[in-house]
Amino acid sequence: MNAINQVAIFGGSHGNELTGVFLVKKFQQQPNLITRQSFQTSALLGNIKAIAEGRRYIEKDLNRCFYGQNHQDDKIVTYEELRAKEIQEILFPHNQPGVDAIIDLHTTTANMGLSVILGNLHPFLLQLAAYLSSINPLVKVYYHPQPKYSGYLRSLCDLGIVIEVGAVAQNILDADLFLHTEQLIYAILDYFELYNQHKLSNHVSSFTLYKFLGTIDYPRNDSGDIQAMIHPQLKFRDFEPLQPGKPIFLTFDGKEIFYTGEDTVYPVFINEAAYYEKGIAMHISQKQLIKLD
Amino acid sequence: MNAINQVAIFGGSHGNELTGVFLVKKFQQQPNLITRQSFQTSALLGNIKAIAEGRRYIEKDLNRCFYGQNHQDDKIVTYEELRAKEIQEILFPHNQPGVDAIIDLHTTTANMGLSVILGNLHPFLLQLAAYLSSINPLVKVYYHPQPKYSGYLRSLCDLGIVIEVGAVAQNILDADLFLHTEQLIYAILDYFELYNQHKLSNHVSSFTLYKFLGTIDYPRNDSGDIQAMIHPQLKFRDFEPLQPGKPIFLTFDGKEIFYTGEDTVYPVFINEAAYYEKGIAMHISQKQLIKLD
Repeated sequence: MNAINQVAIFGGSHGNELTGVFLVKKFQQQPNLITRQSFQTSALLGNIKAIAEGRRYIEKDLNRCFYGQNHQDDKIVTYEELRAKEIQEILFPHNQPGVDAIIDLHTTTANMGLSVILGNLHPFLLQLAAYLSSINPLVKVYYHPQPKYSGYLRSLCDLGIVIEVGAVAQNILDADLFLHTEQLIYAILDYFELYNQHKLSNHVSSFTLYKFLGTIDYPRNDSGDIQAMIHPQLKFRDFEPLQPGKPIFLTFDGKEIFYTGEDTVYPVFINEAAYYEKGIAMHISQKQLIKLD
Repeated sequence: MNAINQVAIFGGSHGNELTGVFLVKKFQQQPNLITRQSFQTSALLGNIKAIAEGRRYIEKDLNRCFYGQNHQDDKIVTYEELRAKEIQEILFPHNQPGVDAIIDLHTTTANMGLSVILGNLHPFLLQLAAYLSSINPLVKVYYHPQPKYSGYLRSLCDLGIVIEVGAVAQNILDADLFLHTEQLIYAILDYFELYNQHKLSNHVSSFTLYKFLGTIDYPRNDSGDIQAMIHPQLKFRDFEPLQPGKPIFLTFDGKEIFYTGEDTVYPVFINEAAYYEKGIAMHISQKQLIKLD
């Protein structure tokens, strides 16, 4: 892999996830914080209109609009599709080198702690994930495969990383999670710097990765209205084992609904507010020990 | 006081506070749950459009639009003002008896547990608050004085009560808080029934009340942008004592800001998402022991 020359940090891809918004504003005011000797770093706000309104998005989830520059202009109708096009042109200007890495800052109402989400298993991302896990045992690594140009901002380049922290409500700041996110950003930038300077050492031989298996929706009636809530026993238990037969939902009438899968899985994004409309009560994942060469 | 003949339960006065929305839908489908022998109970959704969009409000906070029927029609311009007028006409139809009590269901991102908010100190409300505190030690009673027709739904009648539960993010359901809210509603309805049937006994002689003293805003710059977050040491500490000199905010640059009041106070609504735009980082209150005759 070549040197990393340009890095972009995004906040507010979702307008109601304030940690990234205020971190990016801080970096814009104090660019020295994200400046490293061997590469350029820019800090950008994602969904400007949605940030102003305190909403995830105005017309369409921006973080499902990044389809690369081959996306036909006649398909661009919403504000977010237009904004995605603008962002792509900033990150990958015509006839100029584009960014090498994207760090996209998110928060979730799920109790995902300090998570890093990878969309692919590029060897450098695996090394980075191993490094981050080793310096902070709170870091969890979640692998949610996303092909290039699949709509997600992070899918625009091989080194696309999401920092996903929670549990925090939409439209509030949690100081602890703000500080954790900030430190994780610096750790990633420092890692890039060490890589560029050929100073990476202390090779980490393995780390734990949670791999996306699928999603589970809330029980719904014929009109699509949800009929149950996340079960109290599952609440806030992201990244913990869920065994077959354990309760996952509680209906409004007090009936328990149990997990019917055959294997123990590790739910994440449990009770994420923005996923009710997407038909997702939780992701389920598989826990793996990744060994690096 | 006369008998209680009509009670209205409201959910979704704020469209992104789902506990009340789904409880009201449940009561509409199973009215027997809120039926008592001696009075009529209706269950109503507040901000219909905002519920559909998963937002607190569309144009204006509905729970600041209830100014009674003397409010001039030419001042009604927003959807919420119109909806407030409709609700007032439902609750207090022309030349017919109106409701005697309103139970307005809310959630908050603050850690207010299972709270009851009173807008006035009507002797019956004090007795009710004492009773609720006695049967469930988790119940906290917060007194936020609101004159009649002051904009709040609960200000439309003397027996206006808010149930405020948290911490829960906007646009999600928390099963525990849903169940607690539901049980508290039944306890209130049962109390009304006992009162009507002259069967109230077990007089409770005192209870703890937290009385609103004022609000504290986030530190802001000249543009109105917040410059600090709730301090980690204050996070989720609603209804706990805050002594002078203790930290309340942490700036984005890591500076601590301390509480400069002269007396110990009890913050509530700490870090409520909807209050960022209202210039409120928290309410502060005074803890009082209320003795009943």
